[in-house]
Amino acid sequence: MADLLVIAGRAYGSRLLVGTGKYKDFAQTRAAIDASGAEIVTVAIRRTNIGQEPGQPSLLDVLPPEQFTILPNTAGCFTADDAVRTLRLARELLDGHALVKLEVLGDAQTLFPNMPETLKAADILVKEGFQVMVYCADDPIQARMLEDIGCVAIMPLASLIGSGMGILNPWNLQLIINQAKVPVLVDAGVGTASDAAIAMELGCDGVLMNTAIAAAEDPVRMAGAMKKAVEAGREAWLAGRMPKKFYSAVPSSPSGGLIGAT
Amino acid sequence: MADLLVIAGRAYGSRLLVGTGKYKDFAQTRAAIDASGAEIVTVAIRRTNIGQEPGQPSLLDVLPPEQFTILPNTAGCFTADDAVRTLRLARELLDGHALVKLEVLGDAQTLFPNMPETLKAADILVKEGFQVMVYCADDPIQARMLEDIGCVAIMPLASLIGSGMGILNPWNLQLIINQAKVPVLVDAGVGTASDAAIAMELGCDGVLMNTAIAAAEDPVRMAGAMKKAVEAGREAWLAGRMPKKFYSAVPSSPSGGLIGAT
Amino acid sequence: MADLLVIAGRAYGSRLLVGTGKYKDFAQTRAAIDASGAEIVTVAIRRTNIGQEPGQPSLLDVLPPEQFTILPNTAGCFTADDAVRTLRLARELLDGHALVKLEVLGDAQTLFPNMPETLKAADILVKEGFQVMVYCADDPIQARMLEDIGCVAIMPLASLIGSGMGILNPWNLQLIINQAKVPVLVDAGVGTASDAAIAMELGCDGVLMNTAIAAAEDPVRMAGAMKKAVEAGREAWLAGRMPKKFYSAVPSSPSGGLIGAT
Amino acid sequence: MADLLVIAGRAYGSRLLVGTGKYKDFAQTRAAIDASGAEIVTVAIRRTNIGQEPGQPSLLDVLPPEQFTILPNTAGCFTADDAVRTLRLARELLDGHALVKLEVLGDAQTLFPNMPETLKAADILVKEGFQVMVYCADDPIQARMLEDIGCVAIMPLASLIGSGMGILNPWNLQLIINQAKVPVLVDAGVGTASDAAIAMELGCDGVLMNTAIAAAEDPVRMAGAMKKAVEAGREAWLAGRMPKKFYSAVPSSPSGGLIGAT
Repeated sequence: MADLLVIAGRAYGSRLLVGTGKYKDFAQTRAAIDASGAEIVTVAIRRTNIGQEPGQPSLLDVLPPEQFTILPNTAGCFTADDAVRTLRLARELLDGHALVKLEVLGDAQTLFPNMPETLKAADILVKEGFQVMVYCADDPIQARMLEDIGCVAIMPLASLIGSGMGILNPWNLQLIINQAKVPVLVDAGVGTASDAAIAMELGCDGVLMNTAIAAAEDPVRMAGAMKKAVEAGREAWLAGRMPKKFYSAVPSSPSGGLIGAT
Repeated sequence: MADLLVIAGRAYGSRLLVGTGKYKDFAQTRAAIDASGAEIVTVAIRRTNIGQEPGQPSLLDVLPPEQFTILPNTAGCFTADDAVRTLRLARELLDGHALVKLEVLGDAQTLFPNMPETLKAADILVKEGFQVMVYCADDPIQARMLEDIGCVAIMPLASLIGSGMGILNPWNLQLIINQAKVPVLVDAGVGTASDAAIAMELGCDGVLMNTAIAAAEDPVRMAGAMKKAVEAGREAWLAGRMPKKFYSAVPSSPSGGLIGAT
Repeated sequence: MADLLVIAGRAYGSRLLVGTGKYKDFAQTRAAIDASGAEIVTVAIRRTNIGQEPGQPSLLDVLPPEQFTILPNTAGCFTADDAVRTLRLARELLDGHALVKLEVLGDAQTLFPNMPETLKAADILVKEGFQVMVYCADDPIQARMLEDIGCVAIMPLASLIGSGMGILNPWNLQLIINQAKVPVLVDAGVGTASDAAIAMELGCDGVLMNTAIAAAEDPVRMAGAMKKAVEAGREAWLAGRMPKKFYSAVPSSPSGGLIGAT
Repeated sequence: MADLLVIAGRAYGSRLLVGTGKYKDFAQTRAAIDASGAEIVTVAIRRTNIGQEPGQPSLLDVLPPEQFTILPNTAGCFTADDAVRTLRLARELLDGHALVKLEVLGDAQTLFPNMPETLKAADILVKEGFQVMVYCADDPIQARMLEDIGCVAIMPLASLIGSGMGILNPWNLQLIINQAKVPVLVDAGVGTASDAAIAMELGCDGVLMNTAIAAAEDPVRMAGAMKKAVEAGREAWLAGRMPKKFYSAVPSSPSGGLIGAT
């Protein structure tokens, strides 16, 4: 039986979601996304043309909505109002598409989420029929509030956007994962393949990343590495890891008798 | 161009080496090894029948030397003499096979290597024409001594055998990797997929493990996870990860203009 | 010149604040607090008699307000309303005392703060003239909101109350410390002396703890250890630590000439 | 009853041992050592005049052997022969003084110990009647060999000399401490106060440092911080820390009834 990621009732084979920023051109964007195996790609509506600038090249020419689930996001929004307005525009441009990624940032330096504005925007968007995947702090109480509002996925940061610092606080992520009934995806902070594997081994349902791929020396190769890392972490979680031990007095080949002991 | 692991002049496509102990039976051993994609499998000569007990089932029936590079190891040896004797026996049983894994243990509780005995055994074995892959402490000075003796691969522990504690001291591994001219493989301590990825991201040439696969709840699934984790870590290292930053004032979609900025 | 902690205009020589719960009796409470050198002691109003139960032993008999700054706290409150009511009662019992510690908890299991209710309560309390020290998540944006409301000290958790897990995310603490204009004190999560030292080395102005002392095998001895640890961390921060280096090619005694080189 | 550090039959009140290199002048050396409270000070014989250059200023004028236990060390020695020769000279200069610190380095870049040469030198020195405190790798097997040879204290590195990286592998230190019957002191790698506290909380008997004090911006203040940190870590270890818990459902003030619950 396939191990699928189900978000808002739709099933995906890939648990790696990717952004579309910071590539050198649309061709590289597409090549990296292909290598990543991602089915959901997120697009910063305020920075990327998906039709709002007619006559200009559109990202949708490179990433057609027939092939990819386009996930409009509110990168660059610092208030609930801005974020809501941005996603209404996206819905129009994408013919009524309801699945969106909400992020309301606290300041331009850290890009840490502004949680009060995020809660406010989530509430409005859910009531307007959006399916809201939400970037948030690794705060288990506010994560639950977002779920209670009706968000379809909780997306705590692992570390600051664009920092590549990896999973700074796995314990908080664990608290969020343990309680959530909707998918939990790490969003922000992954820097290299092992970070993605660790997120999945904690029990995350998926990982969203952009800079870790786009800012690697070889983005397309890194995209492939991330695909495998997410799968490796997921499979390791499903396989049930060995317990950690301070030491094992038992050698890696047990000593009880010769045959059958292998 | 293929990215191959070359040990003692022979090239391998897989960078994951696996043990054969702790499985419930030979069928599971074989299934897990197939899932791991390993081409080199290590066998504890003192605990596993590869012909020294005629009439008993032999591991070589399940893992034929035509398909796998059998790497005899000296698990359970606590002196140079024992280790040397064991590998001479292995060479006989395996028709002159020269590639071996030397491990001389310091005590039965920690299974930490006994470095003076390891150095002594390595010296004897190299002089006798063995191609010695050597389990050792994460000590950059003694690692270099082993290389100077003529060992064909340096295999420092990441943490204690069978502990699953992961990479306890990445800095020492880094020192060893930076200076080595032969392959460096992490041997011992990997507990889950991300540990293997981290080892490869440090620049290791490969990883050897047994318990992390055999003692997982689902060993075959974990073997597949490890295959992907090793590949993910290797490709991430080749791809060149983004730099870590305390924070990035630059959003994950850059803000300079609308189009082309994606 | 003395290095004093100034909170709400009042200066303290000690940077260690302690709780009063979990001791075996009032005598042990007092002995531990004496050993800690704390000048500010926090009291859970909903659990401790400071006069609301006339005729019962009062903690104030053991910790007279003439000797200690009593800091009433709202442990056990899960809503802004409860917390505000509790602190109004405390003000009455303590003759108009304005300095309080606000904590509004998110759930009984994790004791993680409920930030929306915390922000709401802080706003009410500040308007009513309280000097609010506030327990909060390690969220730099909401920490700044609390400061903007007028809180006199920001008190992020290091890890969950009563967990003893230490500083899980020093980077978030750093962000909070770097931006704050009021004192930042770590509140919750310290488990042993080095945790307190690390908090101070990050630049915290103080540390508040209870379980780490009260639940040690020897609480009075641990209180003394914590006093020294907080001082050590503070002094190390003031002294300016050496830079971390991957390695130093320079021996710890420099090699340039014999004399004067010491 | 006083908690004393006993090395080679002699008791010391301070568990902080300090080096004498890298200070700007002898006056600062002395001021820092006074602030540290150290009773044992180590001197690099090959770099510091303690009488071998008559007519030159001697460190012993500043640190008289009547007040301090002078611990000659072999910093800068890369072979057993060099180290042994250096300590014989020191014994002469110091009127038959037997307590010495042996360090034989592996290379000039990392200053990691050369363990085979260290074992060889230790054996010679013990047979010649020296009381050997020995700098070594954090290798529990070779640590035990050094103890079996008769060394009076085992001094594993926490991280590379002069790196200030702190305790990289607390698990290996733990193995060494658990088995040792002579004092174990961390030697090398401490960078700031909390590092020293952590070493002591692991159960080390003492800490030796030089660069962390001498290369701080304010060495004398850092020396005082280190004194408190070592004491704090020791007392915390003696006091018995609270257990770590993922979370405590029990608030830091227990909820069972009002009075007596404090």
